Amino acid sequence: VLDLFTTAELRDALSLQARVRAMLDFERALAAAQAQVGLIPPAAATAIAAACDVAQIDLPLLGNQAVAAGNLAIPLVRQLTRAVQATDSEAARFVHWGATSQDVIDTGMLLQLRDALALIESDLAALATAVAERAEQHKRTLMPGRTWLQQATPITFGLKAAGWLSAIERDRARLAQLKPRLFVLQFGGAAGTLASLGRRGLDVAAALAAALDLALPELPWHTQRDRFAEIATTLGILTGTLGKAARDLASLMQTEVAEAFEPAAAGKGGSSTMPHKRNPVGAAITLAAATRVPSLVATMLAAMPQEHERGFGNWHAEWDTLPEIVLLAGGATQQMRLAIEGLEVDRERMRTNLDATRGMPYAEAVSMALAEKVGKAAAHHLVEACARAAFAQRCSLRETLAEQPAVAQHLSPGQLDQLFDPRTAAGLAEVFVERALQAFHRTQDGH
Amino acid sequence: VLDLFTTAELRDALSLQARVRAMLDFERALAAAQAQVGLIPPAAATAIAAACDVAQIDLPLLGNQAVAAGNLAIPLVRQLTRAVQATDSEAARFVHWGATSQDVIDTGMLLQLRDALALIESDLAALATAVAERAEQHKRTLMPGRTWLQQATPITFGLKAAGWLSAIERDRARLAQLKPRLFVLQFGGAAGTLASLGRRGLDVAAALAAALDLALPELPWHTQRDRFAEIATTLGILTGTLGKAARDLASLMQTEVAEAFEPAAAGKGGSSTMPHKRNPVGAAITLAAATRVPSLVATMLAAMPQEHERGFGNWHAEWDTLPEIVLLAGGATQQMRLAIEGLEVDRERMRTNLDATRGMPYAEAVSMALAEKVGKAAAHHLVEACARAAFAQRCSLRETLAEQPAVAQHLSPGQLDQLFDPRTAAGLAEVFVERALQAFHRTQDGH
Amino acid sequence: VLDLFTTAELRDALSLQARVRAMLDFERALAAAQAQVGLIPPAAATAIAAACDVAQIDLPLLGNQAVAAGNLAIPLVRQLTRAVQATDSEAARFVHWGATSQDVIDTGMLLQLRDALALIESDLAALATAVAERAEQHKRTLMPGRTWLQQATPITFGLKAAGWLSAIERDRARLAQLKPRLFVLQFGGAAGTLASLGRRGLDVAAALAAALDLALPELPWHTQRDRFAEIATTLGILTGTLGKAARDLASLMQTEVAEAFEPAAAGKGGSSTMPHKRNPVGAAITLAAATRVPSLVATMLAAMPQEHERGFGNWHAEWDTLPEIVLLAGGATQQMRLAIEGLEVDRERMRTNLDATRGMPYAEAVSMALAEKVGKAAAHHLVEACARAAFAQRCSLRETLAEQPAVAQHLSPGQLDQLFDPRTAAGLAEVFVERALQAFHRTQDGH
Amino acid sequence: VLDLFTTAELRDALSLQARVRAMLDFERALAAAQAQVGLIPPAAATAIAAACDVAQIDLPLLGNQAVAAGNLAIPLVRQLTRAVQATDSEAARFVHWGATSQDVIDTGMLLQLRDALALIESDLAALATAVAERAEQHKRTLMPGRTWLQQATPITFGLKAAGWLSAIERDRARLAQLKPRLFVLQFGGAAGTLASLGRRGLDVAAALAAALDLALPELPWHTQRDRFAEIATTLGILTGTLGKAARDLASLMQTEVAEAFEPAAAGKGGSSTMPHKRNPVGAAITLAAATRVPSLVATMLAAMPQEHERGFGNWHAEWDTLPEIVLLAGGATQQMRLAIEGLEVDRERMRTNLDATRGMPYAEAVSMALAEKVGKAAAHHLVEACARAAFAQRCSLRETLAEQPAVAQHLSPGQLDQLFDPRTAAGLAEVFVERALQAFHRTQDGH
Repeated sequence: VLDLFTTAELRDALSLQARVRAMLDFERALAAAQAQVGLIPPAAATAIAAACDVAQIDLPLLGNQAVAAGNLAIPLVRQLTRAVQATDSEAARFVHWGATSQDVIDTGMLLQLRDALALIESDLAALATAVAERAEQHKRTLMPGRTWLQQATPITFGLKAAGWLSAIERDRARLAQLKPRLFVLQFGGAAGTLASLGRRGLDVAAALAAALDLALPELPWHTQRDRFAEIATTLGILTGTLGKAARDLASLMQTEVAEAFEPAAAGKGGSSTMPHKRNPVGAAITLAAATRVPSLVATMLAAMPQEHERGFGNWHAEWDTLPEIVLLAGGATQQMRLAIEGLEVDRERMRTNLDATRGMPYAEAVSMALAEKVGKAAAHHLVEACARAAFAQRCSLRETLAEQPAVAQHLSPGQLDQLFDPRTAAGLAEVFVERALQAFHRTQDGH
Repeated sequence: VLDLFTTAELRDALSLQARVRAMLDFERALAAAQAQVGLIPPAAATAIAAACDVAQIDLPLLGNQAVAAGNLAIPLVRQLTRAVQATDSEAARFVHWGATSQDVIDTGMLLQLRDALALIESDLAALATAVAERAEQHKRTLMPGRTWLQQATPITFGLKAAGWLSAIERDRARLAQLKPRLFVLQFGGAAGTLASLGRRGLDVAAALAAALDLALPELPWHTQRDRFAEIATTLGILTGTLGKAARDLASLMQTEVAEAFEPAAAGKGGSSTMPHKRNPVGAAITLAAATRVPSLVATMLAAMPQEHERGFGNWHAEWDTLPEIVLLAGGATQQMRLAIEGLEVDRERMRTNLDATRGMPYAEAVSMALAEKVGKAAAHHLVEACARAAFAQRCSLRETLAEQPAVAQHLSPGQLDQLFDPRTAAGLAEVFVERALQAFHRTQDGH
Repeated sequence: VLDLFTTAELRDALSLQARVRAMLDFERALAAAQAQVGLIPPAAATAIAAACDVAQIDLPLLGNQAVAAGNLAIPLVRQLTRAVQATDSEAARFVHWGATSQDVIDTGMLLQLRDALALIESDLAALATAVAERAEQHKRTLMPGRTWLQQATPITFGLKAAGWLSAIERDRARLAQLKPRLFVLQFGGAAGTLASLGRRGLDVAAALAAALDLALPELPWHTQRDRFAEIATTLGILTGTLGKAARDLASLMQTEVAEAFEPAAAGKGGSSTMPHKRNPVGAAITLAAATRVPSLVATMLAAMPQEHERGFGNWHAEWDTLPEIVLLAGGATQQMRLAIEGLEVDRERMRTNLDATRGMPYAEAVSMALAEKVGKAAAHHLVEACARAAFAQRCSLRETLAEQPAVAQHLSPGQLDQLFDPRTAAGLAEVFVERALQAFHRTQDGH
Repeated sequence: VLDLFTTAELRDALSLQARVRAMLDFERALAAAQAQVGLIPPAAATAIAAACDVAQIDLPLLGNQAVAAGNLAIPLVRQLTRAVQATDSEAARFVHWGATSQDVIDTGMLLQLRDALALIESDLAALATAVAERAEQHKRTLMPGRTWLQQATPITFGLKAAGWLSAIERDRARLAQLKPRLFVLQFGGAAGTLASLGRRGLDVAAALAAALDLALPELPWHTQRDRFAEIATTLGILTGTLGKAARDLASLMQTEVAEAFEPAAAGKGGSSTMPHKRNPVGAAITLAAATRVPSLVATMLAAMPQEHERGFGNWHAEWDTLPEIVLLAGGATQQMRLAIEGLEVDRERMRTNLDATRGMPYAEAVSMALAEKVGKAAAHHLVEACARAAFAQRCSLRETLAEQPAVAQHLSPGQLDQLFDPRTAAGLAEVFVERALQAFHRTQDGH
């Protein structure tokens, strides 16, 4: 599995090394918390802390042992215990005291997720800013609106960007609402009762949560997986949002449309055989993520009904799936950031394309205007007939309409001019852009 | 497609009739809003309102026409226009004025979702209450904790219920946070610019939103589908939560476990061939939902990258998928409500099962206690050996340990008694239940 | 759930009525088989046969009872027994004798699937023929090949059609291989041992299989669901094949490409607001299926690990999912059949588009030819530079190259002419089409 | 991404190194084929062959470059070209001659898949043999049949194993039918026309296919992805089959059931806290695969509608997804092989469990026997009443029935004895096992 489509930072944040580091953070903080409440000697906590160093772990060996053991925690605790033993044999027996494998695996995953989300949110903020700039810049840049891939009435490129922006802003709001629910300590011991810590379990849990800067839950949540499911679905929606923008972008880059382009980068987007091509590489990577993530989200949801006090099979199914989602969502975010920050927009071509169908995008407006005079159905049929005639004879719809007495009778040349004015025909595009930007700036100010 | 697994109320709320009614609500409110801002004559709005009556629509005909037209809006507007024409031919031309099919389809779906969610949330509130009662009742009811389907240390049934409760409460919180983002008017006209309404588009939109009690968005969101995706994912997580409880319940109902049971209902859970059986029907229906919904959620996410100003194919993919999710999530909610409200708990059998392995669930506690004397590894091996011996010879672990000098030397009979006291061994189970209940009651008070 | 996107025939074949009819076919054949081997009186079989008439079943009542009972079999057997009782109370006790609900539900589904597959295969055969005709007709019709949505080297439209054809032919081969594995009787009684039929169970099973024209399996397969999973995956692959053709078609129908079109049909593909549009409705319906079916297939696969001798939840998850897959796959097949049978191809526009980039599609050929003289890297860079220059200055690549001494030195005007001859540049397109057609005709002859 | 759940051999077969090796195999064979048909000098082919050595490739560098380039082929061809250049600058220009990235990526994947499938099929054959042995050994080993996790009528453990066996055999048949469709050369050049090879393209393709021992397709299949989809779905069904056996196994290992066990292995299945536990690790890994693979299959299907002559995004979505499926399916196959080869069956406990409900599993047989006397409904109600009474009073169903005059009147003690004989009650279990074994051995002989 190559994971070509993510960022180096996320790859690091979700690497085996980072996972082990996070798990050691848990073990160190656990010992410290237990020392703090007087459950283990301070010296033991010190010795354990000293050994909780990823550089001291034999990672390749750990990987192999994990395959045999079925999880990372068992061999890691073994290596850690041995390392503590080497310096303080008394302390060794307090390693992982009262915790279960799932405590360190789940909490370790949370710590990794926190780092990873920070990276993604940073790219996402930059992407929002870049999109907002495009929306502002192009709020009056006319282009064809397209429905069913067919040209419809005119819009502005800013309106398209404002649509992206508003969705990205909702994705950011979802992430913000999710975090207090997600970043919650997992610590319950064998069956979720912290039985092995006697009456001090809750104090240890509170100290541990504080040390790791995680919230203390009402109770351990070993087989209640909604927290992990929710980060998966939230990133799933984000990836869908990015995929929508990527599909727009790739469509605009088509040879026959050619209205906007990802920035050209060295060694990116070239073809091994065709020197003239400019491939939508960032869009492709983003769409790859948008193709893969929905199914990975389904896996996270399907894995939720976990058995009694510990899932088997379904818990394991999460381990690679959730990091994959994070890697793909993060990779897509960065790709779209780069694509939008360096976006090249060809206003002229947009206008050329809008004119290429000789007036078709204005048909609806004419139809509406005529409807006020002759009724909707009659207007619709009249305009439809003219549109078909103009299309067949490759002449201008405006001329065809003007030559039609049934039309000329109701619409003066001046009225027709106005109806065929793309600025009029773009309706509230600019107003909507401004509304989206105002909301964006209000949120920015709120941060 | 039979949809056996949902409630009659939800089936109604998501029926063709309800869909048409919701779409007519949109058309009526649209005409009223346009009259209000002076765009169409008040008499037209009145005539349109009079015709917006689902009883006047030929539903079977509509269904057939919808298949041909590819969506419901086109033939519905046609039927509606004809109905208006019959009473006020002038008014007919203002039917659906300035709107596009997607405006009425999406907004209609929102109105249906609002009704459906109200039903689901009502069942969910009752389920939460019932689960909280079980948690309270059974906070000290001892039973085996089970990890990997193997008996682990003891828990209480209340702890299991508290786990369900806390997840349900988070699901309710998610629904609460989602609603302001979801219930937002869709109204943009052909390409999302409201071009055909001239400068008055925004006023119409505001009046329309107010009339339908929906929020007014910054801009139309035809191809930004995150709102629908989010209700899908939120119900997906809810279904996973319910599936977890259902899997627990079905496992407890197993012939060999027999610790808790769904209520018996007339004609439910019987077998056509085996008169003695008591099938977990509610759990089965819930698990069916938990098996189907994840993939349906994936479809909603996969459908997000919609083309330019109108999706094709992917938008259509939502139409049956989102209602299916709602039907299944709602059916599962009701089934679990009935199951938990009528739950029969066999405390005696729970205790019998806990004792059936002759002390194995206390092995960990002994191991921990011994570890304080002889170190963790030595203790683990010692207890493991005794456990294997006791298991092989079918005798009690407590006896086996007591007979082992290496154990007796460190643990007195009194200490062993305490270690084998299930109440001690259940650790913080009761404390955790109380914390979960407090949180639940705090939230209840906040409502 | 509206199921707008399928055929009327499939809707009938998978309706509640058809399901009940198929289940009654099973019950009738079961009684006949039992009479044949002497297990029940011939008169009982006759009485049961007379009552196995879907017209005598109260379908709305059945639907409601099925919701309560959790499956269709229990209330259906009840209605049937009552009907038999009315004419022959003795015979009534032999209704459904020795069978379990799953026997009649699974076998009934198989009988429905057989009818449904026959419909789909008929449309698929017609589609293959239509595609083969297009491939033949257009084997030399030049058009731009497109990779990453960018114009690449020229192909022919026939080559594109031949690609569709070869995939469709593989789909037909898969269906042919699947059928002997799929159409296999389900009949095992309560736990799959046919215990209640004593020693005659196997004879009854053989006679029942023969009567229903199904194969007799080595053993009942209640919780081995691979047969249903395989029809799901096979239709899933078919839908993907159709989706690929549909995406091609929708892309060719784009306003800016406009090379090929679905046939216009009355009331189909029109827009409610824009009279000039020609929407790719068939392609949209097909892509909707290609968006939905993959997830539904995942549900069928996820439902496979069914518990012991009867699944719960996961078995139920199949009931609506498999018919949905069939409806969607069949609807897509018919849509693509109609689209291809009535396809309008604009050869002229294909050629215009190929020329629109002023020679870019030939860049690779020039690069390859130059490579023979100056090496691959040098040639690539040289052509890339010319391509960029030509693109920037909007002039012809052929001219730009000719003016470049480094090129002119190695390639004569005649050579350049040949390199820019689209027929040469289309390489083996025609050869590949002929190979695909030969394979198709060989298979046709084999039928 | 840790991929803990697969075999070392598969990990190797699907490693970056193996991928590069397979791609170099393609490049070497391509040059040889071109030399063979006289398209390039033999010396060039020799030089290229010499450089096609994975040991000469800088893999870490390649990985990084692939991230930038968006695929592996571009930087690999670059490294390879440089290596050839170092020894024969003339030959360098013939590296990758006429091929496109997708040719080498797809064909390389096929070569890897061939190796991987051979490994999986070998494990699968061994698994089938082990399962057949269990079926034979235990064809008369009585145990409770279980439906809805409730005890139903008796079966034998051999019957359960025979069910697994027959499904595994169908999976092997599917793999056998798939291979001729799957192992087909991909070679089409830039747009699938082999244009750059002039008239010799087909000869090169034929020689290349022969050299790689792949079939020659009628035409290149760049955007027809059904071949890769089919290997995905076939492994998906296999994984479901394995998941079913794994779920059975884990359920049998439950503390309260304890009828069969995975072999204990050093460091496997132990708990970090509870020395007495024996976790179903192999079953868990298999169920993890059965949870993840369905969604990954959905991704492969969803990725099928690829654009025109080269997919973007959807093609990329396959790259990690298909290998994941292979890794998971192969890991699950090996785990189940180990589990079944070392399976421990507790016949005594099976019998104890069968007796634990004091005769309930025989209720159906009694009901059927009584039905012959009093009619089905009356018999059902009578037995149901006795079953409820016996259940409530914890006494034997046989006694309860015998004490019931309405029963005693129709069934003699001798008849009751026979009805309560589990061997009778297991019906055709043994017959079905033998039929399944005969079919297995017939197939084995056919190999």
